[in-house]
Amino acid sequence: MNSNAQWLARRITSLGLSVRRITVVGDDVDEISVAVLEAIQRKPCFIITTGGLGPTFDDKTLDGIAKALGRKLREDEKALEMIKGKYQRYVDEGRIEKFELTPPRIKMAKIPEGAETFYNPVGTAPGVLARHEDVNLVMLPGVPEEMKAIFDGSVEPLLRRIAGNVTFFEASIQVKRIPESDIAPIIDRVMRDNPYVYIKSHPRVGGKVPHLELHLSTTSRNPEEARRRVSGALIQISELIQQKGGDVKPTKA
Amino acid sequence: MNSNAQWLARRITSLGLSVRRITVVGDDVDEISVAVLEAIQRKPCFIITTGGLGPTFDDKTLDGIAKALGRKLREDEKALEMIKGKYQRYVDEGRIEKFELTPPRIKMAKIPEGAETFYNPVGTAPGVLARHEDVNLVMLPGVPEEMKAIFDGSVEPLLRRIAGNVTFFEASIQVKRIPESDIAPIIDRVMRDNPYVYIKSHPRVGGKVPHLELHLSTTSRNPEEARRRVSGALIQISELIQQKGGDVKPTKA
Repeated sequence: MNSNAQWLARRITSLGLSVRRITVVGDDVDEISVAVLEAIQRKPCFIITTGGLGPTFDDKTLDGIAKALGRKLREDEKALEMIKGKYQRYVDEGRIEKFELTPPRIKMAKIPEGAETFYNPVGTAPGVLARHEDVNLVMLPGVPEEMKAIFDGSVEPLLRRIAGNVTFFEASIQVKRIPESDIAPIIDRVMRDNPYVYIKSHPRVGGKVPHLELHLSTTSRNPEEARRRVSGALIQISELIQQKGGDVKPTKA
Repeated sequence: MNSNAQWLARRITSLGLSVRRITVVGDDVDEISVAVLEAIQRKPCFIITTGGLGPTFDDKTLDGIAKALGRKLREDEKALEMIKGKYQRYVDEGRIEKFELTPPRIKMAKIPEGAETFYNPVGTAPGVLARHEDVNLVMLPGVPEEMKAIFDGSVEPLLRRIAGNVTFFEASIQVKRIPESDIAPIIDRVMRDNPYVYIKSHPRVGGKVPHLELHLSTTSRNPEEARRRVSGALIQISELIQQKGGDVKPTKA
């Protein structure tokens, strides 16, 4: 679950969009519904959920979302066809013996009224898209391979349309022999001098000497501009750290 | 950040307490303050934060918490002594050349009014404990080694006092050759027959045959009772799965 959120945050950020909040709740319809309502009130472009779309009783995401939106769950023809096709393929491949359309399988085709499905090229439960006012609610399965496949195939194109042609550019450096508290005023100055560059410091523990990583990033509609901004800030911060006796080297990708 | 949340959730659950929500926000005083206010309204026993206690400008947790609680930040004598002692030790060990009490270092000693500090045996920034009505707000550093050391030394004893002598007991089994949708009704039945046992299924992708992990858990004041409940449910579910043609084996620890 957590690595799903991390993977999504990285992918969304690299599109030039920003992730405002990540929330994890238990398998409880009310908790899910309240968390989704709170998220809707923050008026984001997208709310993306992972997990809870499968056939078992603890898969409660669609129930929770339907409750938050004040909609009913209804059996979706297209989703049912996808699920039937998937299990038929498992039978053909000899992975399971026979196939019946049992209630737990039909459950995966019950999506909130007015919602659409995304094709799941890896597993059985389809992804779901519901629109509520200006918010796009995207529901993805929790199995990482399925979540990633639906994101790549169906969700990223939607996000790109929102993000337009914004480019995200980032660079990291490793800094040694100078404690974080001495770098703090340097970061302040470089951020003041480079107003479009965001700098984040990540202290690292272990080893005899103080060690941290600085991460510089920016977004711009002009890729060359984004690169120039980060490079300029990188040169300035490296010089200031070296003047204070610190060692600087680029982080290996 | 995410592995911190995962580590904490596991430790807290194993004490017999339950984690209701995990929230991740950016380095923004207002976002932190709003998230903390929302959490307080859910009236938990504990709110634990990680990260944002260091000397740099992006360390905004204490600002955000002070804002949420309507308190000011004040310089804490004990925290300042801890920080001085730490840097003096770094100088003695030759890790840094000299030590001055610069504003970024003093920043780490500014905690919300009425709050207390926890000793940080690994790094510089102390942990913080603030009480608000019946909620204990615990602030831990983001560096995992520091977070874990303060949790083990200072936070776990507080949690144990709340949890009393509740025991958490869990077991997992690997299930093959039966799809999750056929296990769903079996889980329903076993949970009905074993009302104190919670069962969660985790589908696994890959391989030729359907494969999933079932996780059974319970909490009880009587450790023997907790073990008996989980064992009973485990035997029943294994038999029902085998009757349906599935393979069951225990998960290696």
